[in-house]
Amino acid sequence: MYQLVLIRHGESTWNLENRFTGWTDVDLTPTGVSQAMAAGKLLKAEGFDFDLCYTSVLKRAIHTLWYALDEMDRAWLPVVKSWRLNERHYGALQGLNKADMVRQYGEEQVLIWRRSYDTPPPALDPADARCERGDPRYAKLKPEEVPLTECLKDTVARVLPFWEESIARAMKAGQRVLVVAHGNSIRALVTHLDNISDSDIVGLNIPNGIPLVYELDAELRPLRHYYLGDAEAAERAAAAVASQGKSC
Amino acid sequence: MYQLVLIRHGESTWNLENRFTGWTDVDLTPTGVSQAMAAGKLLKAEGFDFDLCYTSVLKRAIHTLWYALDEMDRAWLPVVKSWRLNERHYGALQGLNKADMVRQYGEEQVLIWRRSYDTPPPALDPADARCERGDPRYAKLKPEEVPLTECLKDTVARVLPFWEESIARAMKAGQRVLVVAHGNSIRALVTHLDNISDSDIVGLNIPNGIPLVYELDAELRPLRHYYLGDAEAAERAAAAVASQGKSC
Repeated sequence: MYQLVLIRHGESTWNLENRFTGWTDVDLTPTGVSQAMAAGKLLKAEGFDFDLCYTSVLKRAIHTLWYALDEMDRAWLPVVKSWRLNERHYGALQGLNKADMVRQYGEEQVLIWRRSYDTPPPALDPADARCERGDPRYAKLKPEEVPLTECLKDTVARVLPFWEESIARAMKAGQRVLVVAHGNSIRALVTHLDNISDSDIVGLNIPNGIPLVYELDAELRPLRHYYLGDAEAAERAAAAVASQGKSC
Repeated sequence: MYQLVLIRHGESTWNLENRFTGWTDVDLTPTGVSQAMAAGKLLKAEGFDFDLCYTSVLKRAIHTLWYALDEMDRAWLPVVKSWRLNERHYGALQGLNKADMVRQYGEEQVLIWRRSYDTPPPALDPADARCERGDPRYAKLKPEEVPLTECLKDTVARVLPFWEESIARAMKAGQRVLVVAHGNSIRALVTHLDNISDSDIVGLNIPNGIPLVYELDAELRPLRHYYLGDAEAAERAAAAVASQGKSC
């Protein structure tokens, strides 16, 4: 039996400010730091240990991992950082306030951008200062691999090759894996693992900083999954994500 | 021309307490954190950038790297952690106070343990609770690869294969490399790069948290090296290391 632990980063400054974040590299809030530390404490208290960690190239996820590892006295574990685990790219909405967007475009349109599986938000202009194509962390990618916007379907399409080629391969080689990533890159993994339909996955909310444990069979098919710690707290956190529109 | 930057970790709790540290995994002091942040600020201000980072599996080096990377907004850089960059193993002296050891064994004996190139301190008993052979971070090593003590010659012998097989190879492939390590693993690299004699290297003191820049030719032979920032401050820091016996 294999085991995989997924953690969504702790609260970020733009979660708090209710802004669309996407690939923008904002940091954790003090609450986010506490959530990250609590995740590490919980993993340690429950006897979890790891051989290999994965995270994105965005600091809200990297720092969440660092704080959690420190709580487990595991700063020395190898960490693979990949852009493929980044949050869904939010296109021209990145940096904008969600409530402002609702006033400007209406509730229904914003809900489509947030919740449609295959309709992306408006694309960033490549000349826009917010476009990540000049960012050195993406220098090795082909320009067209750096998205100008993404729907969840696009995110799934770039997360899954990394799952197959790297994470799943490491797990089958016996590595105990911890993944610290983002609401939508975790959704992409969960969609694949649990074979969730496109329409159902958009309704699944991943709470910040609560370890989601998967137990899998020899073919990496899930036997069961559960949130670590207080199940009610995890549900409340997921509901909060849903109602506050912070899952994007 | 190639470039390599070496940083010794910031002040650790046992530097401050004047205890022999070696492979014991103690953390940074607040001063050590400030030194790490200052190193990152300095590198950024001077226009340095990197593609790949190396550090040990000891948290005083890992955390120094993390703080420095955060100051440079480079938390996303790939980091390779290797036991081969660990501090010299201090054998049965690990954890003991240097002044106590001087009272017990005499100044001359302690100086031999600290400064001889090829005389190691007394070995740890494998049954000693301080022995690292059961530590999971070394689980992939053969037991005999986990030292019970080391002289500087031993440290050089396990650092250099890693230099050749990993760091030098990455540099020749065009990667701009940052190494955050320890007084003696950095001495090992410097001995090799500058072709320093065994008797001279033991007198070379690496100050905490001050970037040491090497410029190298196509064969990785050093053209010049210098400490970044205030040269006098670097010399004072190195002198402080020497006089306080904290370089071990």
